[in-house]
Amino acid sequence: MSDLAASPFDTLLSAPHALTRAACETLDASDPLAPMRDQFVLPDGVIYLDGNSLGPLPKASRERASEVVDIEWGRDLIASWNTHEWFDMPQRLGRKISQLLGGTAGGCVVSDSTSVNVFKAVTAALELQRGDSERTVIISERQNFPSDLYIVEGLRDLLDRGLELRLVDDAAGLQEALGPDVAVVLLTEVNYRTGELWDMTEVTQQVHAAGALVVWDLCHSAGALPITLDESRADFAVGCTYKYLNGGPGAPGFVWVAEQHLATARNPLSGWWGHTRPFAMETGYVPAAGAASFQVGTQPILSLAVCEVGIDMALQTNMRHVREKSLQLTDLCIALLQTRLAEFDLTLVTPREHARRGSQVSVVHPEGYAVMQALIAAGVIGDYREPGVLRFGFTPLFTRFVDVWDAMEVLRDVLTRESYRAQEFQRRGVVT
Amino acid sequence: MSDLAASPFDTLLSAPHALTRAACETLDASDPLAPMRDQFVLPDGVIYLDGNSLGPLPKASRERASEVVDIEWGRDLIASWNTHEWFDMPQRLGRKISQLLGGTAGGCVVSDSTSVNVFKAVTAALELQRGDSERTVIISERQNFPSDLYIVEGLRDLLDRGLELRLVDDAAGLQEALGPDVAVVLLTEVNYRTGELWDMTEVTQQVHAAGALVVWDLCHSAGALPITLDESRADFAVGCTYKYLNGGPGAPGFVWVAEQHLATARNPLSGWWGHTRPFAMETGYVPAAGAASFQVGTQPILSLAVCEVGIDMALQTNMRHVREKSLQLTDLCIALLQTRLAEFDLTLVTPREHARRGSQVSVVHPEGYAVMQALIAAGVIGDYREPGVLRFGFTPLFTRFVDVWDAMEVLRDVLTRESYRAQEFQRRGVVT
Repeated sequence: MSDLAASPFDTLLSAPHALTRAACETLDASDPLAPMRDQFVLPDGVIYLDGNSLGPLPKASRERASEVVDIEWGRDLIASWNTHEWFDMPQRLGRKISQLLGGTAGGCVVSDSTSVNVFKAVTAALELQRGDSERTVIISERQNFPSDLYIVEGLRDLLDRGLELRLVDDAAGLQEALGPDVAVVLLTEVNYRTGELWDMTEVTQQVHAAGALVVWDLCHSAGALPITLDESRADFAVGCTYKYLNGGPGAPGFVWVAEQHLATARNPLSGWWGHTRPFAMETGYVPAAGAASFQVGTQPILSLAVCEVGIDMALQTNMRHVREKSLQLTDLCIALLQTRLAEFDLTLVTPREHARRGSQVSVVHPEGYAVMQALIAAGVIGDYREPGVLRFGFTPLFTRFVDVWDAMEVLRDVLTRESYRAQEFQRRGVVT
Repeated sequence: MSDLAASPFDTLLSAPHALTRAACETLDASDPLAPMRDQFVLPDGVIYLDGNSLGPLPKASRERASEVVDIEWGRDLIASWNTHEWFDMPQRLGRKISQLLGGTAGGCVVSDSTSVNVFKAVTAALELQRGDSERTVIISERQNFPSDLYIVEGLRDLLDRGLELRLVDDAAGLQEALGPDVAVVLLTEVNYRTGELWDMTEVTQQVHAAGALVVWDLCHSAGALPITLDESRADFAVGCTYKYLNGGPGAPGFVWVAEQHLATARNPLSGWWGHTRPFAMETGYVPAAGAASFQVGTQPILSLAVCEVGIDMALQTNMRHVREKSLQLTDLCIALLQTRLAEFDLTLVTPREHARRGSQVSVVHPEGYAVMQALIAAGVIGDYREPGVLRFGFTPLFTRFVDVWDAMEVLRDVLTRESYRAQEFQRRGVVT
C-alpha cells in the first residue's frame, strides 16, 4: 500500500478550501492512467460509478464480438474450436488472470460462474481436509456476499457429514472462531457492501496456523488492487471478470488453485473439459494436470472471448498505479463527504484506513434507495444495497477526479433539494 | 413417428435407379422447411453436416449480438439487468425450451453448462430417493457421452455413501440392471456417436416400475425431434442449446424438472440466482419456487441473449415437420451409402428403424479420421468420433436433399481416389 503522507494529493485533502473542481482537473491532467479512459465506451451525460457491479464496454470488445460472431462462428464454424483456439480459452484466460492475482505459481481457469466456482473450491478444500475427521466447520463472514454462504449451506446439506457453517463478524471474531474443528475458511477479500478489505497475508497465516485452508473470493478485488495469492500462500481463490475487469455482463468467473494443491486438489464437478484426454471419449474420468481439471463443461465462447479484451486491458496497466489512483479517488470522495456534504445524514461504512479499503465508498442514508434512484435519474450511476447503502465504485481505468467531484455535487444537490422524496421508485434489485 | 410407407419419397428410395441429384432437387422444391435455410449464414462452397456439434450462425444472431453489446451493455449499462430483462433471461428461455421439449407442465431454466446441469439433476434425483437407503445404484449407458459418466463418478466419490455407477450396453441390459437397488437412471435420448434413439416413454415406464427416477440428456434431441417429457412422465432433463438449437458456441445448457418434482427437488448448487429473494441479500438460503431454484450464479448474458435467437427459430417450426424431414434426410443418406457407396468399407452404426434413429448418420471406416479430414478439405463438414466413426448430422432447418447427395458423392470420390491417404492430418479433437 503506498503511503501518500507527503504527496501533493494529501496536502490537498488536508486543506478543505483548496478542494475545488479546478484542483480535481489538475489531478486528472497529471494522471498516468488518464489515457485508458479513451478505450471505453462511456455514454454522454453519465458519471458511471458502478464499474464494481458491471464494468463498462471496452471499445475493442465491440470488434471482438463481431469477429467471434461473423468470422469464427459464422464463417469458420466448428473448425474454430481448434483454429481460433476456443477450446484453450479457459486456460489461456486463466493464465492471464493469474498474473493479475499474483498467482502465477498456482493455476487458474476462467470457467463457469463464481458461485459454481465457490462450490468447486470449498469442496476441494474440504476434501483435502478429509483425513482429519474432527474438522467439520466452515467459517465465513456473516456479511459475505450471500451466494457464497448459500453455496456452503447447500454443500453442508448435500454431504450430510455433520458439517457446520460458522459465521463471524470481523477479524477478532475470526481469530476466536478458528480452532481444531475448522476445516475451511471462506472470505471475500473486499466486502461487496462496505468495501472493507481483509489482510490476505495475515489472515491466511492465521487460518493456516489453525490447520485450516482458506478460499478467497476476489470478486471485488480482481482488477482493482494488487493481489498476492502466491506470496500469501493462499489455498484457493475464485472471482468474477465482469466488475473491475470489464469482461461483459455475466462473463465467466475464475477459480484458482495454489501451487501446493495443484497435484492433489479434486474438482467435485468432474466434467469432460477437466479430463486429461477430453477427446478420447474414455469411460473413466482421469483429471487433467493442474487447474485445467477445474473445468467442467463447454463454455460460452462469445462471452469468454469478449471477456478476454477486458483482461488484456488490465494487463496493460500496473496494478500498483491502479491501486494508488484508486485510493486517491476514494480518499477524495470521503474528503468531499466530510466537508461539502457534512450537513447530511450520511454515515460512512467504508473504512478510512487505506489498508482496510477496497475501491469503493459506501454510505448509509435513511432513504438510501430513493436517494440512489434520484442520483441515477440525475446521471450519477452508483447502486443501492440493502440496508440503506449508497454504493459508489471507482474504477481507476476510466474514473476521473472531476467525476468524483461532480458526482458528490449532484448528491449534495439531491439531498439539499430533497428531490428524492418527490419520486416514486419501483424497488427492484440489480446484480452485484 | 410418421410412417412414410406410401409416400413418393419411399417409392424413390425403393428404386435405386430413380435416386438421382435431380430427384433430390425435386424434393427440395417441395420442402415446406426450405425457406428456413435463408435465415442462416452458410459459407459458400461448404456442405455443413455438423449442426449436431455446432449449429451455424442465424443471420438474426448477428444483429442481436450487436444490440446487446452496443445498446444494452454499452449504452444502458447496469440498468439493463432490469430494462432489458437480463435477469429474467434464464427463466424466459427456459419457458421457451419447455415448449420444444413437450414439457410445459414442468419447469426449465437455461443456465450453466450441460455437465453442471447433469450434476444438479442427478443429485436432485438421488436426494428424492434418500428415503430408501437400499437404492445406491445409478445406471447409465457405457456409450453415453463421457461427461455424463464423469459427473456421476465425481458425485459418487464426493457423497461417499457407497453409491455405484452401473453401466449397461442396451435396452435389454437396462431391463436386467433395473432392480430395488437402483436410485437413478441417466440416459441420453439420442446417442452422440451412433445416433441411436431411446424410447423415452417406454424406458421411463420401466424405470418407474422399478422404483427409480430417470434423468434424460437431450443434447442430441432438443430441436431435432418431438420430445414428450410431460407425457412420458420423465423426472429430469438436461441438454444444450448450441447443436440443433443453433444458440452459438458453448451457449448455456438447460435443466428441466418435472411437474411432480417441482415442489420437492433441490438444487445442490444453491446459489443466489436460485434464491426466492435474490436481492434481499439474506444470510439464509430459501429456494425459489419451481425450476427457478435450479439457477446458481450470474449467467453470461451475451451468450444467453444470442442463444435466444436460435430457440425462437425452432419455435417458428413444427417439430413434426422437422422430424419428418430429418427422417427423409437420414433415409436418403443411408440409401446412398447402400447403393452408390456399397463397394467401400463403411459400416453403418446408426439404426435403420425410424423409431430408433435420431437426426444423424454415423458410419465406421478403418481410416475414419483421415477420411473425415479429406472430406472437410473437400468442403463437406461432418466430424469424427472415436473409434473410427464418420458422423454426419442433418439439421432440417438448413440441410437440403441435394446437400446429402453432394456430400455422399464427395465421400465416394474421396474413397475412390483414396485421397485421404495422401494427407497428413494433425489429430485433434473438437467439441461435440
